[in-house]
Amino acid sequence: MGAKEKRPALPSLCARGHHSVINDANREKLPGLVVEILKSLDMEDSPDHVGFPMIPSQESLEKLLEAYLTILMPGYFGNQAVDANSVGYYLGGKVDEFYTILSEQAMKCFIHECKGPAKPNCQDCEKKGSDAALEILRKIPSLRRQLAGDVLAAYNGDPAAKNHEEIIFCYPGVRAVTIYRLAHELFLQGIPILPRMLTEHAHSVTGCDIHPGAAIGGHFFIDHATGVVIGETAVIGDRVRIYQGVTLGGANFEVDEEGRLIRDHKRHPTIEDDCVLYAGATILGGKTVVGRGSVIGGNVWLTHSVPPLTKVTLSTQEQRIIPINEEVKSK
Amino acid sequence: MGAKEKRPALPSLCARGHHSVINDANREKLPGLVVEILKSLDMEDSPDHVGFPMIPSQESLEKLLEAYLTILMPGYFGNQAVDANSVGYYLGGKVDEFYTILSEQAMKCFIHECKGPAKPNCQDCEKKGSDAALEILRKIPSLRRQLAGDVLAAYNGDPAAKNHEEIIFCYPGVRAVTIYRLAHELFLQGIPILPRMLTEHAHSVTGCDIHPGAAIGGHFFIDHATGVVIGETAVIGDRVRIYQGVTLGGANFEVDEEGRLIRDHKRHPTIEDDCVLYAGATILGGKTVVGRGSVIGGNVWLTHSVPPLTKVTLSTQEQRIIPINEEVKSK
Amino acid sequence: MGAKEKRPALPSLCARGHHSVINDANREKLPGLVVEILKSLDMEDSPDHVGFPMIPSQESLEKLLEAYLTILMPGYFGNQAVDANSVGYYLGGKVDEFYTILSEQAMKCFIHECKGPAKPNCQDCEKKGSDAALEILRKIPSLRRQLAGDVLAAYNGDPAAKNHEEIIFCYPGVRAVTIYRLAHELFLQGIPILPRMLTEHAHSVTGCDIHPGAAIGGHFFIDHATGVVIGETAVIGDRVRIYQGVTLGGANFEVDEEGRLIRDHKRHPTIEDDCVLYAGATILGGKTVVGRGSVIGGNVWLTHSVPPLTKVTLSTQEQRIIPINEEVKSK
Repeated sequence: MGAKEKRPALPSLCARGHHSVINDANREKLPGLVVEILKSLDMEDSPDHVGFPMIPSQESLEKLLEAYLTILMPGYFGNQAVDANSVGYYLGGKVDEFYTILSEQAMKCFIHECKGPAKPNCQDCEKKGSDAALEILRKIPSLRRQLAGDVLAAYNGDPAAKNHEEIIFCYPGVRAVTIYRLAHELFLQGIPILPRMLTEHAHSVTGCDIHPGAAIGGHFFIDHATGVVIGETAVIGDRVRIYQGVTLGGANFEVDEEGRLIRDHKRHPTIEDDCVLYAGATILGGKTVVGRGSVIGGNVWLTHSVPPLTKVTLSTQEQRIIPINEEVKSK
Repeated sequence: MGAKEKRPALPSLCARGHHSVINDANREKLPGLVVEILKSLDMEDSPDHVGFPMIPSQESLEKLLEAYLTILMPGYFGNQAVDANSVGYYLGGKVDEFYTILSEQAMKCFIHECKGPAKPNCQDCEKKGSDAALEILRKIPSLRRQLAGDVLAAYNGDPAAKNHEEIIFCYPGVRAVTIYRLAHELFLQGIPILPRMLTEHAHSVTGCDIHPGAAIGGHFFIDHATGVVIGETAVIGDRVRIYQGVTLGGANFEVDEEGRLIRDHKRHPTIEDDCVLYAGATILGGKTVVGRGSVIGGNVWLTHSVPPLTKVTLSTQEQRIIPINEEVKSK
Repeated sequence: MGAKEKRPALPSLCARGHHSVINDANREKLPGLVVEILKSLDMEDSPDHVGFPMIPSQESLEKLLEAYLTILMPGYFGNQAVDANSVGYYLGGKVDEFYTILSEQAMKCFIHECKGPAKPNCQDCEKKGSDAALEILRKIPSLRRQLAGDVLAAYNGDPAAKNHEEIIFCYPGVRAVTIYRLAHELFLQGIPILPRMLTEHAHSVTGCDIHPGAAIGGHFFIDHATGVVIGETAVIGDRVRIYQGVTLGGANFEVDEEGRLIRDHKRHPTIEDDCVLYAGATILGGKTVVGRGSVIGGNVWLTHSVPPLTKVTLSTQEQRIIPINEEVKSK
């Protein structure tokens, strides 16, 4: 890796670094391979989507979220400053964009659920999509109030936070919760698949996986956010604070008489108002209730309820503290 | 932050918000700084790649994966619906694209390993690249069958899953495993660096870090996926289910007589068929075997083997459960 | 999902999959909704940025980082190979680009802190921005030396690492630390908000959240990286190795007489030279010192200091190991 040896010019093929596709005999074999792949569409449970209508693309999701965040927090995003003179035009244009994207993508999701050929009634899907989009726009002032509460909770919950702007720009937990709150409204409207796509997009960006079905109160703060998982039927009260790596998950699965998973019952815990759940705490089960004002310490594994105002921590006795001798150190 | 105070128009510099580069005296100092940076290329272990051929760019990786996912799951991605009439053309075009990108990028990786000036034999690299690409295309039907099994495992392993489409679109664990299965085939073909770049791309998007060298059986499901680490020499059987934050890692490092790390021996555990590893379980060491059908509870730290049909959990005795008094609460 | 049933062509609406916006009566209701949203800007703590100057956009952050990484590691990124003949021009152009972007974005951050209308002195911001950018360029040779040390630490710390190139391309911990080291220099220059935006961008890509205020020594290696959190006032010595999911966090918050959080004191631990912190270890508190050469085992929760050369692990006694009987297995 020394500098001197690597100074000679590169041989031409290496420098060129691309492929002479013209002379490639392998290319003649491609049509035969395409036939094999087409045949594989006939396998059972083939993972294809041939003959079904489209669902929203990743690109449309990102445009939808960009419009949503801009409407929720005008002036924070985009490439120009917004002042009192321009905010009306600015918001008007974004609302129109948000409505157009959401009504179209929601329609696609409704059509997709109709399964195209299977049911003839998907003419309704267009109206259902635009009605849902309008209903979400009615919720924007309420979503803005919830965001204001969440930002305040972050400011009061993190001594490293310098101001509200930093929280809005740089806090992945706030971003994940803001997207969750939209996805939850879409979930309540009965729009299929889109809510889950939105929270999974947030998960990819923030490391924080909140199912759109979870019910979460106001002034909610997730710090650092990576690795947090909040399941579909979790219920969280007001003013709860959560740290990275916390799981609110299911415990044992219940199956019906034929051994199939039961999918529609409460499987995730309830966290009452004013609780704090430290990094890596794992709380499981639909009957588990963490009572009001309780504190669950880091790395605790909890599968039973605790009463209000309880502190659960790992005891320190379980740790072995030993001096490192030379033998150990050499490894 | 109140609305009324912030209504005045912005001073022009603030509103303008860009830099008048013309008048910038500091700019005259840049050439001298460039000279200092160039000098730093002569340091030992300089982190530069001057005089070496290119390796694949991030952009080409993303195009390769887009083509791969489209071929594996036709109709799921892209901007138009695919039906029985169009699927042949659609797949044919994508296969051609996949072959072109993969043979070119694989060639770059082979050339890179030749280290340009160091060895004259890199004329072979072009053929090695296109042969490897063809071989991967032959594996596509088999990769599609593995994906079908993984999707089924997710559907049977998660009560929140509504249907197979949701799993394919929204489950980061399924995405990470699907990309791993391609990377593993490239790894078996001996293509340098590209497999690791692909799994690291998947890691960035899904939070799930699977080394391309790991050997993983069928019907594999990782739920939530964030924080999962599966090391290079891990071996995983069929029908294994893993949750977020699980590590299959190395234990102590072994060094040779000169104190250098030994890099090519089994350092990561073996997980036999039908095991379940809950969130945050950490299992370490190349000799550690988790026997068939065992269950490792959340946050367990395991460095020894367990026999088949064993359940290992943290005991609850180690937790301190104490009421919160006013003093504690005030903090 | 079988192939045969899904072969019919799609009905036209389903295939079309977009919205007939012309006939949409809902669209007439949008202006009224825009008025409601505008009214909501008057709420207390409204999350808007109307009347304030811009801060850096996500797009400018990404361009800044691309230029930084290219200058630090010439030849590794971009679309063409660099050799001894071209490296001078190549670096010169990138340095100019880096300087232009950084001085402009730093200026925006200084202007933003002036709060536009609130203070008239933001004419200085332009000079402050370009001075800061120049100062950072002076640090590049030193940042390159630090990177070389970090890459070496990764090579010596991971038996799976094949060579330095793989580490630079594929190791998220190295990427996160490299971006942190730039952000830390910007933090020391007093540039507001930009350092935090950069580390949060790195967090999003790598899963590793390092506050720009942390002080970190040389030859630092974070393996796998997902879920790592290093707080604002953490201090880390030389040759420290950290694994995924490690937290160096704050313990109890201190509040002033009026109950407000105290924001500027040491809240995060000190890790002395040559320590190793295994996956999921959580170390908390500003007075906690992990002495030189100590090893903290996986999933350990530590809130007190340990002397040099100490090994802390979870004891195995706390685990329950029980055979799985049929009843348990059926769940």
